[in-house]
Amino acid sequence: MRISELSRRSGVANATIKYYLREGLLPPGRATAATQAEYDDTHLRRLRLIRALIGVRGLSVAAAKQVLDTVSEYQTDTHQVLGLVLGIPQGGATSKAPRPDAEGEQHGSEADALLTALGWEVSEYNPALKVIDETLETLRSLGLDHDWRFLLPYAELARRTARLDLDELESLKDPLEMAERAVLLTYLLEPALMALRRLAQEAESMVRHGETTSPSPDSCATRRLSDEPG
Amino acid sequence: MRISELSRRSGVANATIKYYLREGLLPPGRATAATQAEYDDTHLRRLRLIRALIGVRGLSVAAAKQVLDTVSEYQTDTHQVLGLVLGIPQGGATSKAPRPDAEGEQHGSEADALLTALGWEVSEYNPALKVIDETLETLRSLGLDHDWRFLLPYAELARRTARLDLDELESLKDPLEMAERAVLLTYLLEPALMALRRLAQEAESMVRHGETTSPSPDSCATRRLSDEPG
Repeated sequence: MRISELSRRSGVANATIKYYLREGLLPPGRATAATQAEYDDTHLRRLRLIRALIGVRGLSVAAAKQVLDTVSEYQTDTHQVLGLVLGIPQGGATSKAPRPDAEGEQHGSEADALLTALGWEVSEYNPALKVIDETLETLRSLGLDHDWRFLLPYAELARRTARLDLDELESLKDPLEMAERAVLLTYLLEPALMALRRLAQEAESMVRHGETTSPSPDSCATRRLSDEPG
Repeated sequence: MRISELSRRSGVANATIKYYLREGLLPPGRATAATQAEYDDTHLRRLRLIRALIGVRGLSVAAAKQVLDTVSEYQTDTHQVLGLVLGIPQGGATSKAPRPDAEGEQHGSEADALLTALGWEVSEYNPALKVIDETLETLRSLGLDHDWRFLLPYAELARRTARLDLDELESLKDPLEMAERAVLLTYLLEPALMALRRLAQEAESMVRHGETTSPSPDSCATRRLSDEPG
């Protein structure tokens, strides 16, 4: 297809596509004349990934190019591709960074303690580690007196969610497609997952408390009577 | 305690506390002299809740006042309090809004279809419904060709997460404390839950693919051979 059709089908402006071509984010098309080139579905898919990296993941053009270059280099390595998408610096994703051992020195990080308890092996460069510590600190400053143990059951459910994510990624064979899907799943699905939790909170509350929509001392009295050993 | 100590212990500026008193967000203290009042722990807790509603939940002062007034009114009703925190307009939380029935007219909303499949009873005013539809639309515009069925297993895990939330809320007896905790759990915990998912993605990927950190055609060949019947 011509660049105009690539623009139409991708929804990315002509000028932007040319910019990506100049910056090397998008590989050149097959030259058909001095000033014309032919593009194919690989270009369309690559454009979608660029859009996901810049628009969704919030990367700069330079950072997006680095991800794309590394995805091309480590094409067959799911773990490496996912690590890049998660924002783990190159090398950090593959190194099995040992968590501080139980008897060894403590980093003092609550996230470290949590991961050790869970037996999860993650890179020390995973940006999500900091979020755990920061959130617990904020919660404590607002009077919630829980430490990392509070997060243990939530973490177990997060692991099951991650298994769904990985299953989805592994259903794809093309590494570029996989990188794109990883960006979409990790970043774009987040609002929906939080919305599902809020809907579930209401639904669960309805099951547990929905009957007593107005204070109903009668039902309490009945309950108490029937609870008494007879 | 005096207002100065209330300020020190809550971390809320003196002038701000006086503003909340004037606006009726904070109940007046017990007058001890013409220009002096005595405050207690209920004021401290109420201040924390105001901070959570305005600072964390992002409500205006007027909206926060409305939540506080309704929390006082429906003190014994967990379901009502949670509904308010979730941003469901008053009345919406208690009405068992019927989902559009299977043979009846379709709203066309994917969130509706999802909830019907799950058997979840939620108010049609729950703001999270819109987020589900918007996210699916965005994902589709980026080439992910999944409909609401894709969210079903995620929703089941969200329901289990919500059960942890509700368990935590039900451990509290004081309705004001419960409202505060609901704000913290629903809004402030979100970044940590998403961080847990990202850590879990890496940990799960490490278990599934961590061994093949560099392309290793040998192991594939071995695998293929041993897979052959024989």
